[in-house]
Amino acid sequence: MRTKASPAARSTALETRFHAIRALTRGLAAPLSDADATVQSMDDASPAKWHLAHTSWFFETFVLRDHVPGYRLHDEAWPFLFNSYYETEGQRHARPRRGMLTRPSLAQVLDYRAAVDAALLDALPGLPEPARALVELGCQHEQQHQELLLTDILHLFAQNPLEPPLWPGDRKVPVAMPGPIGWIEGKTGAHDIGALPSTSSTNGTDAFSNFAFDCEGPRHAVQLHPHAIADRTVTNGEWIAFIEDGGYRMPSHWLSDGWAWVQREDIAAPLYWAQRDGIWTRFGLDGRRPLDPAAPVTHVSFFEADAYASWAGARLPTEAEWEAAAAAHDPLAGNQLDTPGPVEPRPSTSGPAFFGDVWEWTGSAYRPYPGFRPAEGAVGEYNGKFMSGQFVLRGGSCATPRGHVRPSYRNFFYPHQRWQFTGVRLARDL
Amino acid sequence: MRTKASPAARSTALETRFHAIRALTRGLAAPLSDADATVQSMDDASPAKWHLAHTSWFFETFVLRDHVPGYRLHDEAWPFLFNSYYETEGQRHARPRRGMLTRPSLAQVLDYRAAVDAALLDALPGLPEPARALVELGCQHEQQHQELLLTDILHLFAQNPLEPPLWPGDRKVPVAMPGPIGWIEGKTGAHDIGALPSTSSTNGTDAFSNFAFDCEGPRHAVQLHPHAIADRTVTNGEWIAFIEDGGYRMPSHWLSDGWAWVQREDIAAPLYWAQRDGIWTRFGLDGRRPLDPAAPVTHVSFFEADAYASWAGARLPTEAEWEAAAAAHDPLAGNQLDTPGPVEPRPSTSGPAFFGDVWEWTGSAYRPYPGFRPAEGAVGEYNGKFMSGQFVLRGGSCATPRGHVRPSYRNFFYPHQRWQFTGVRLARDL
Amino acid sequence: MRTKASPAARSTALETRFHAIRALTRGLAAPLSDADATVQSMDDASPAKWHLAHTSWFFETFVLRDHVPGYRLHDEAWPFLFNSYYETEGQRHARPRRGMLTRPSLAQVLDYRAAVDAALLDALPGLPEPARALVELGCQHEQQHQELLLTDILHLFAQNPLEPPLWPGDRKVPVAMPGPIGWIEGKTGAHDIGALPSTSSTNGTDAFSNFAFDCEGPRHAVQLHPHAIADRTVTNGEWIAFIEDGGYRMPSHWLSDGWAWVQREDIAAPLYWAQRDGIWTRFGLDGRRPLDPAAPVTHVSFFEADAYASWAGARLPTEAEWEAAAAAHDPLAGNQLDTPGPVEPRPSTSGPAFFGDVWEWTGSAYRPYPGFRPAEGAVGEYNGKFMSGQFVLRGGSCATPRGHVRPSYRNFFYPHQRWQFTGVRLARDL
Amino acid sequence: MRTKASPAARSTALETRFHAIRALTRGLAAPLSDADATVQSMDDASPAKWHLAHTSWFFETFVLRDHVPGYRLHDEAWPFLFNSYYETEGQRHARPRRGMLTRPSLAQVLDYRAAVDAALLDALPGLPEPARALVELGCQHEQQHQELLLTDILHLFAQNPLEPPLWPGDRKVPVAMPGPIGWIEGKTGAHDIGALPSTSSTNGTDAFSNFAFDCEGPRHAVQLHPHAIADRTVTNGEWIAFIEDGGYRMPSHWLSDGWAWVQREDIAAPLYWAQRDGIWTRFGLDGRRPLDPAAPVTHVSFFEADAYASWAGARLPTEAEWEAAAAAHDPLAGNQLDTPGPVEPRPSTSGPAFFGDVWEWTGSAYRPYPGFRPAEGAVGEYNGKFMSGQFVLRGGSCATPRGHVRPSYRNFFYPHQRWQFTGVRLARDL
Repeated sequence: MRTKASPAARSTALETRFHAIRALTRGLAAPLSDADATVQSMDDASPAKWHLAHTSWFFETFVLRDHVPGYRLHDEAWPFLFNSYYETEGQRHARPRRGMLTRPSLAQVLDYRAAVDAALLDALPGLPEPARALVELGCQHEQQHQELLLTDILHLFAQNPLEPPLWPGDRKVPVAMPGPIGWIEGKTGAHDIGALPSTSSTNGTDAFSNFAFDCEGPRHAVQLHPHAIADRTVTNGEWIAFIEDGGYRMPSHWLSDGWAWVQREDIAAPLYWAQRDGIWTRFGLDGRRPLDPAAPVTHVSFFEADAYASWAGARLPTEAEWEAAAAAHDPLAGNQLDTPGPVEPRPSTSGPAFFGDVWEWTGSAYRPYPGFRPAEGAVGEYNGKFMSGQFVLRGGSCATPRGHVRPSYRNFFYPHQRWQFTGVRLARDL
Repeated sequence: MRTKASPAARSTALETRFHAIRALTRGLAAPLSDADATVQSMDDASPAKWHLAHTSWFFETFVLRDHVPGYRLHDEAWPFLFNSYYETEGQRHARPRRGMLTRPSLAQVLDYRAAVDAALLDALPGLPEPARALVELGCQHEQQHQELLLTDILHLFAQNPLEPPLWPGDRKVPVAMPGPIGWIEGKTGAHDIGALPSTSSTNGTDAFSNFAFDCEGPRHAVQLHPHAIADRTVTNGEWIAFIEDGGYRMPSHWLSDGWAWVQREDIAAPLYWAQRDGIWTRFGLDGRRPLDPAAPVTHVSFFEADAYASWAGARLPTEAEWEAAAAAHDPLAGNQLDTPGPVEPRPSTSGPAFFGDVWEWTGSAYRPYPGFRPAEGAVGEYNGKFMSGQFVLRGGSCATPRGHVRPSYRNFFYPHQRWQFTGVRLARDL
Repeated sequence: MRTKASPAARSTALETRFHAIRALTRGLAAPLSDADATVQSMDDASPAKWHLAHTSWFFETFVLRDHVPGYRLHDEAWPFLFNSYYETEGQRHARPRRGMLTRPSLAQVLDYRAAVDAALLDALPGLPEPARALVELGCQHEQQHQELLLTDILHLFAQNPLEPPLWPGDRKVPVAMPGPIGWIEGKTGAHDIGALPSTSSTNGTDAFSNFAFDCEGPRHAVQLHPHAIADRTVTNGEWIAFIEDGGYRMPSHWLSDGWAWVQREDIAAPLYWAQRDGIWTRFGLDGRRPLDPAAPVTHVSFFEADAYASWAGARLPTEAEWEAAAAAHDPLAGNQLDTPGPVEPRPSTSGPAFFGDVWEWTGSAYRPYPGFRPAEGAVGEYNGKFMSGQFVLRGGSCATPRGHVRPSYRNFFYPHQRWQFTGVRLARDL
Repeated sequence: MRTKASPAARSTALETRFHAIRALTRGLAAPLSDADATVQSMDDASPAKWHLAHTSWFFETFVLRDHVPGYRLHDEAWPFLFNSYYETEGQRHARPRRGMLTRPSLAQVLDYRAAVDAALLDALPGLPEPARALVELGCQHEQQHQELLLTDILHLFAQNPLEPPLWPGDRKVPVAMPGPIGWIEGKTGAHDIGALPSTSSTNGTDAFSNFAFDCEGPRHAVQLHPHAIADRTVTNGEWIAFIEDGGYRMPSHWLSDGWAWVQREDIAAPLYWAQRDGIWTRFGLDGRRPLDPAAPVTHVSFFEADAYASWAGARLPTEAEWEAAAAAHDPLAGNQLDTPGPVEPRPSTSGPAFFGDVWEWTGSAYRPYPGFRPAEGAVGEYNGKFMSGQFVLRGGSCATPRGHVRPSYRNFFYPHQRWQFTGVRLARDL
């Protein structure tokens, strides 16, 4: 049971947390050159420099500018550059043009980060509760961008015929193949999902431990119908069987939009896969390597996930089914961003796990929960405005900072997107 | 309670129904020239000639070819031309090229219809039950195309600077403005929605009265949360207020994808609206006429419907909320295709109605119900493959053949589409 | 030497000519249904109905409206529909939307033609000379559209999987293969090309015989350099050798833009060619038939023509070289539109010919001659505004009305276009 | 008259020249960060890093690899990256993806340059004549890329809302407005243009002084017709008058393709122009500054140049007219790359000049001269393959290295391109 902490202890905890998260971002960017950090490899991705600056802009705008009397902007021109999609915060630099910003340089952006950090750590002890909640929101926001920074760099490096690794690293030891999927029978009938209202204003050192984004609530009852959910995600080896069985050439297993996508984009394997001398390889943050058949498949789109499930005689779980099953598992366990070794999905070495390795596509469209109300003001633009055309993913990945993800956490992407660490867990009706 | 009918009576009923539906389609096409029936005005639309042929192809392929020994195809080359999306039926003429088919002519296609009708009416008395169910499915399918034929012609004629009317007709009498929206409190807690399993094989003359498409089932429980639903749809007059308040220029009310659509397509009013000498007009099947402020707004996209609801401090109903509310209403009532007078939404003249006038956008993404299984074979490609990226609409419109729609009926379109008779009903949380 | 004719004789000659040309257009459209005449198969093409109406609009606007007192427009709304590119004549219906005009019908457009013909023939005897010159211009303009009407219909019918023939016709008799290309040594040094100033205002019955478009003049000296020009065009058989030698896969023979076009559009043979059961066939106005290896190749782009020439160790002639060589030949000879039998390029049966069969791509960009001045007013928009990015073609084709083409005649198309009857004559430096 | 130099002197001269040109390129890139040098701002442009590497690749491939026994490539993978369009040199990295190459870094590319320089200077004394000619060709090639490097960086920086200057520099002193254009009467009749065959293999220290690209020859006679050519180029002040007279809104002055471009791209002023507080400004290598009305207009397309000429009652000169007039002028005079002060077109301070300031659009399509033969082998892919759709520009600009341009020099761009320093000289018929 949680106990209340003194205000001083609370600030210290938030200060520690803020410092650690900011330092991790900085560390992720450490191997990047000025050029690496500047280029935008596709419209969906952003330059690393932009991630570094935008996350700082968030703290500068919503905390320092709005809550610290006398604060002066680091540079009056930069909010225009580093705002993302907050329409109420005014005009923005067009998203597909982010890669044109060779100035400010990476060094200048890192100076900006340092200045914002110093100002915020200085101000933190005296901030009122609503501003502290915004600091927490900014930390959560930054954690999301940590993952994007990695997946965007991976995408950029994959465009380079030299295929440079971000972290060269050593070869990891092969692991024995997992056994066949086991099926966990799920709950049936009325069941509550979603996050409880955040109580971060009252409970001290673990302020962040019950943080949730607005779209994760309100907590509400859903009806679950008889079903079972797989005890692990689909592996690379299983995906090769799908390919070899002609999975990418059978329209009967694909949604109509998915089939059009496969044909238009000439899709025949997960992103970053390539056959070299008859062997399947993948490109990862450690460069191009042979595929590990025991590891979870990743970089697949919803369309691919859905087609695979159809081919396998199963379906994707709903987000409610997933959340009900995951509730019994520890969200701090699993292969997440701080796990030693290469950042990539790894073969399972223990029992059922629902967190880490790969984001799992669910069959649920990303829509508001009953009674959903976006937060007030600009920060309320954060989640609700994306509620059309996207699907929910659950569980976090190998690139998700440990502590960021929860059973109620709703990630969302368009059904064709696959440059995140996205994978597949099956479900079926009973 | 329903009583069983003799096989002969059943066949007679289906024969009568088949004949009436086929004749209605033919009647809708009566004012069309060969050219009118041939041109395709956008990728989403199909030529009238194609609708006329495709609906015949459906009966020819799935009933006559598959169930009538010795039947010979009307023309061996036509299945390639008039198949729509049934991958298992083989190669198809590309959808966006349907407007290239100046041959066969409208007259030849009408001959094809007549030949299929004769062969089917001849075969009907001897058809086994599964084939009779396919005839019923073909009738339902044809009713869907009746509506599309009208909305596609409307779109085509709207591209012509001469703005020809399909049915010139007389001006209708103005109707007094409806009062303010009333709110109907909805049910809360577990509630069953969806269609019961079809029993068309066993209950005789009303075989079609409990027909449902596969996607309408299985019937299942959902959780309803405290809410109210409007007792009428939004009117043109109310929509003008939205426009005049700057509704199309306020990003805060729009989904992100919707706002991008508004800006990319330069959207500032419903489709077919135009200001002429300071007066709002709309183009309809009777040509361009001044807008009736008392009539339900139509030709709005999901994006517009959602933005309007946000502007009005409300939201769209879920499909479950809509179905629960509509269950108490008569699906045969309301302004539907056979109502005398112009085919367009009309001002409400009585109490709450849920059927006819305009299809109502719900806030529900079109996804499978729990336990959904597509039908076997080619006809199973009908609904399930479209379950990504689209939203559910309910209730039928002024162009929906009476008897075609039901409380469980799920129509679906992409959120930017608006050439159907689509409108808005509000809901709100309690 | 020409003699002057009386004004009455002149009017009679022009009347006869006007009547014949208008009747030929009408005849070309005779096999077309309302739908055939309405559909636009690509942006470059126009519907036959549009050709029929636009050529009439030309006479109505520039002759009847401007020179016949009291003339009332056939329909006030139609000029907007049937203007092509005359900016000074006001707003126009967007070119790529010409295929949306299912109304007015073909029958209405034919009535329009008849009404314009009657009014013009009625007015002709009393027209002043400048208006008579516009009638002559309109006749020349209509002849251009006669060819376009055929090539546009050919393109439309080629989009239909049924591949309907416009004129079914009989198979023609095979002809012996032509011998190897012979080389005609061309003139060297200063040489005059281009049309003399038109004298149509003064010379009576043969008013049209020295008509020329503004872009054909002024006549001026060019320098010719030592060269030879082929005595016939390239045949289908020779083109097959080019294909079989990998001509479409060797970048070294292609212009950079041409190579990009080949790759982007996946070009591997002339337009309308297809292999059926191992035999090369082509689609023509008489449907799909086996290719005649002795006939001139047609439906090739400038890019293809240039690559072929490079592969053959030759080059395309300049337009000056072509005109100098053609000056000795009879422009009324050769396979042109009124030749009995199918409208298609035919094997040569006699000596060198420069007119008919196929338009011959030259190596000359379409640019103004020294001292070029466009005609005054709207009709001056006719040729000069297209002088960028296009190449000159010479000689007329099997679809060019006999009497329309001359040695100085400059046709022009973009280097990727190939739906006209376009072919290749080689040249080389000496 | 030229005298022969000894082989040793020749090598020394070439060595000096090679060294100076390579050093200038290095100097131009000096202000660039790694990021500045990496990003590609549009498909037409290349990253500075790519220019730096590609020019080195040229020397490495065609001189060191082909003519220096035992030479080993700096990096086996880089030819794939830095080949431009030489199909015979094998596969290339796709042009629009050049901006993805964050690795190798700018520092690595500069090391590559240094290594190539050292190897080449080491080998130069012993190189046979054909290889020395390739060194000269490489120097000419590098000079072309010097200009492109500057114009590409200018374009990149113009995409950045911060509008960083490459060289901040001081404001230059205003200059009095030039007087009205004077007209120089041109030659008439047969006249020779084009470069003489290069004699670089035989004449020693001035080896480069009669270098010419293959497309500049053969020298040949053309016919000139009575004309006059302006004694200076059009100024910014004159262009403002064109704008204020509605020049960008009058279709009658535009080529059809140009008018479509103006409307599609919403063009209303030269590239990099913007009104700020009612004053016209331009963005240049020294940032955004008020426009100097006395300076030559630049960053205009052929379409704009042609429309301006039409509006001014004139036309563009042909390339032959230009060359005939320029022959009397010193190609080493004028505002070229090494002129002290900002790199931008400057007001004329003396009499007629034909070199420097701005490339001048001619009315001539870029096509081969009579008897043109591309050079053998890969270097022959240099010019001939671009001979469709482009127009010739003459005279060099403020960004052209002095000594690079000659009277016969033919630059070429597509008619819509305007990111080079392109301007307008008028001509007219007499």
